[in-house]
Amino acid sequence: MTAIAAVLAAGPASAQKVDGAKLLQRALAERGAYQRAVRLADEVGARLAGSAAGDRAVAWAVAELKASGFSNVHTEPVTVQSWRRGPDDRVELLGPNGRRLHALALGLSPGTRPEGVRAEVVEVDSFAALHQLGDKVRGKIVFYNRAMKRSTGFDQYGTVGALRFMGAAEAGKLGAVGAVVRSIGTGWHRLPHTGATEYEPGVPKIPFAALAAEDAELLHRALQRGPQQLALSLSCGPGPKVQSANVVGELPGRGHPEQIVLLGAHLDSWDVGDGALDDGAGVGIAIEAARLAADLHPKRTLRVVLYMNEEYELSGAKAYADAHATELGRHVAAMEADAGAGPPLGFDVVGEAGAAIVRRWLEGTREPVKAVPRTGSDLTVLAGVPQLAIDQDVSDYFEWHHTDGDTADKIDPEAIERSAAAFARLAAEAADRDETLPRLPPNPPRR
Amino acid sequence: MTAIAAVLAAGPASAQKVDGAKLLQRALAERGAYQRAVRLADEVGARLAGSAAGDRAVAWAVAELKASGFSNVHTEPVTVQSWRRGPDDRVELLGPNGRRLHALALGLSPGTRPEGVRAEVVEVDSFAALHQLGDKVRGKIVFYNRAMKRSTGFDQYGTVGALRFMGAAEAGKLGAVGAVVRSIGTGWHRLPHTGATEYEPGVPKIPFAALAAEDAELLHRALQRGPQQLALSLSCGPGPKVQSANVVGELPGRGHPEQIVLLGAHLDSWDVGDGALDDGAGVGIAIEAARLAADLHPKRTLRVVLYMNEEYELSGAKAYADAHATELGRHVAAMEADAGAGPPLGFDVVGEAGAAIVRRWLEGTREPVKAVPRTGSDLTVLAGVPQLAIDQDVSDYFEWHHTDGDTADKIDPEAIERSAAAFARLAAEAADRDETLPRLPPNPPRR
Repeated sequence: MTAIAAVLAAGPASAQKVDGAKLLQRALAERGAYQRAVRLADEVGARLAGSAAGDRAVAWAVAELKASGFSNVHTEPVTVQSWRRGPDDRVELLGPNGRRLHALALGLSPGTRPEGVRAEVVEVDSFAALHQLGDKVRGKIVFYNRAMKRSTGFDQYGTVGALRFMGAAEAGKLGAVGAVVRSIGTGWHRLPHTGATEYEPGVPKIPFAALAAEDAELLHRALQRGPQQLALSLSCGPGPKVQSANVVGELPGRGHPEQIVLLGAHLDSWDVGDGALDDGAGVGIAIEAARLAADLHPKRTLRVVLYMNEEYELSGAKAYADAHATELGRHVAAMEADAGAGPPLGFDVVGEAGAAIVRRWLEGTREPVKAVPRTGSDLTVLAGVPQLAIDQDVSDYFEWHHTDGDTADKIDPEAIERSAAAFARLAAEAADRDETLPRLPPNPPRR
Repeated sequence: MTAIAAVLAAGPASAQKVDGAKLLQRALAERGAYQRAVRLADEVGARLAGSAAGDRAVAWAVAELKASGFSNVHTEPVTVQSWRRGPDDRVELLGPNGRRLHALALGLSPGTRPEGVRAEVVEVDSFAALHQLGDKVRGKIVFYNRAMKRSTGFDQYGTVGALRFMGAAEAGKLGAVGAVVRSIGTGWHRLPHTGATEYEPGVPKIPFAALAAEDAELLHRALQRGPQQLALSLSCGPGPKVQSANVVGELPGRGHPEQIVLLGAHLDSWDVGDGALDDGAGVGIAIEAARLAADLHPKRTLRVVLYMNEEYELSGAKAYADAHATELGRHVAAMEADAGAGPPLGFDVVGEAGAAIVRRWLEGTREPVKAVPRTGSDLTVLAGVPQLAIDQDVSDYFEWHHTDGDTADKIDPEAIERSAAAFARLAAEAADRDETLPRLPPNPPRR
């Protein structure tokens, strides 16, 4: 009798194969997600893809998976077109009341000439407002100033975040010589955030930096007194192509070990803070969830994939999809933990057909099972593979996301285990059910 | 009929000379304290005594007092033995898991040799624990790690703060080669604080820096894994003697203009943040409170004194006390606004005899009138002058105190006016009562 069958035999009549309460009890007792997340943050710290710390993270993960009882632990090559921050991201408000603002260059931003860029500022709170300015943007530095609201979900990151994702490209199209954006986050701590921005072919690549909330407010107040000039001097830019790696480990299934449930997280972080919430927490959750699920002896293999360079290239995700192309048909489900250390609010399934099945699997569970258009970034390139996730509460996550404040102390030891247990539960169901989830269309939309 | 007499004639039967509700209404309508505090923070920003920004603050204050209708606006010379932060305060946790910690040299700390100081760390949470270590401290770097709790009063700053005020001296006596302290504040934002520390004659002056709360926790966790080494490299130290100034302005009394009620605040700030709460708020409160009180046409003169270098030398306070020594007998009361922008909780009076009188003046008022041993730092050198203050709620103040987060957005526009109105009320009573407060003993204890 497998452990899952034993649980079924002992438990109350239910369609669920897995006893979520017992999983949670174990997760809370062992604190395995918490301890791994804290150790990765403390022992490796910031680990930008393509940096020496990125290599240390790979070594850490190999050792950690081996010590945690995984088999077939190995690295898989990932080429990273590296981006590097320079020694000094300098954004200065000029004039008699001027001062240096707290700012960080955004990922993939080019540097400026050594003498920097200096221009008058135009403030907008949306792309609509930017486009209305039209030709008045030419030669200027665009200042995107829109506060993000706290939310339990990613909705605000999607909408307000667009100003960062596309801000340089949109301003560049109108002839701006640079851009700054109020940090995409709800924190109030004078720590600017960073994060990738996207450039478009054929559009001038203008330098782009984020301001701390306080500095955005200062600049806003200054603009109410009259015209202002900013000086931008960034020494960031592309580095060499660097050889790095994904780290993979397995807990083999007892019946169909060739069939795979993938539990992902990303190993890299930004170069500020210690990458505790993003994505040390996910690494801890993925490893611990796989272990907890494997202890129930499901039929299929639980494979943990710790991706390199989710943050600015998805290069590890693409390398995995390429290397495992012929095997993707045997991936019955994939889930990524990349939403911090907050508690679980429910279950997410890409597509309504899959969600209907998971609802049946989890019948009687209080938390909602929602159909969503996409889940983790690293999974968006996994053509056809059914995707699941835990809907984690991110209202604290965006207080610290991509800032120097993303440190181990921000992880709530109980909340993270609740999410690890929920991941384990979903993974165990997917790994043991005879019924599998429907394949997704070949190219699910990218987040 | 003076305005105060008119208020008395119109108001309800009460021992109070001043209608506190009307003052509050005016303060809230005019927002004068708020606007001045924000302007000083935004237009001048950080203004360390002895720096060029300190000079700009003096010019700002002269212009502001003149524009606010003060007479006899002038500067009074203050010599500042300047202290300067170097370009780089570097505290590094060494070893394979090492990293740079977020740290700031404390005011008056000497710099290190260029190669820095490198030693094993000993962690303590009190001077008692330090003294117990005794000879084990020799050659080490002492790490004071004690979290400050939120409080409405200065009690925590007094007790936990002692680790900063005296930490270098106490560690130096035991042969330590350096010291670091968890920032004295309740903030959780990875911003280290700064502030003055005191050295003792005959004790080696060892370098001393503060760590952000997160970095103190990181170091604490590392020490639980095993011995750790820190490297301290500070390039701060004494600068030249610099000529600076207090700024003084008056609103003359209608009956006894030679008698003075002093409203103080300090013009200087630390070199981080914008000095909005410390003490831009106090500057705004002192100026606005004097204006509001003067509009009631009290008998005595309201004199605003904006002190230079409260933060590390009290040099402005001493210069004022010296320059006005023969006039101190005509100072019937002094009050300083140097507790941020929080709302008023009550009234403080140095000494029980004075408190009893003020209780009579404010009979019927809900807020308590407390006898306290001391009030503002700049007043401690004013031999004999009766001292009053508003007891402001400082529970938010120590979130940001002496950090880069002390910016204009931290000022609550309503709370600061409530405190300004309370200061105005107390000043107006002191400036118009026939009865005066008893003189204090010549040397009141220093805070």
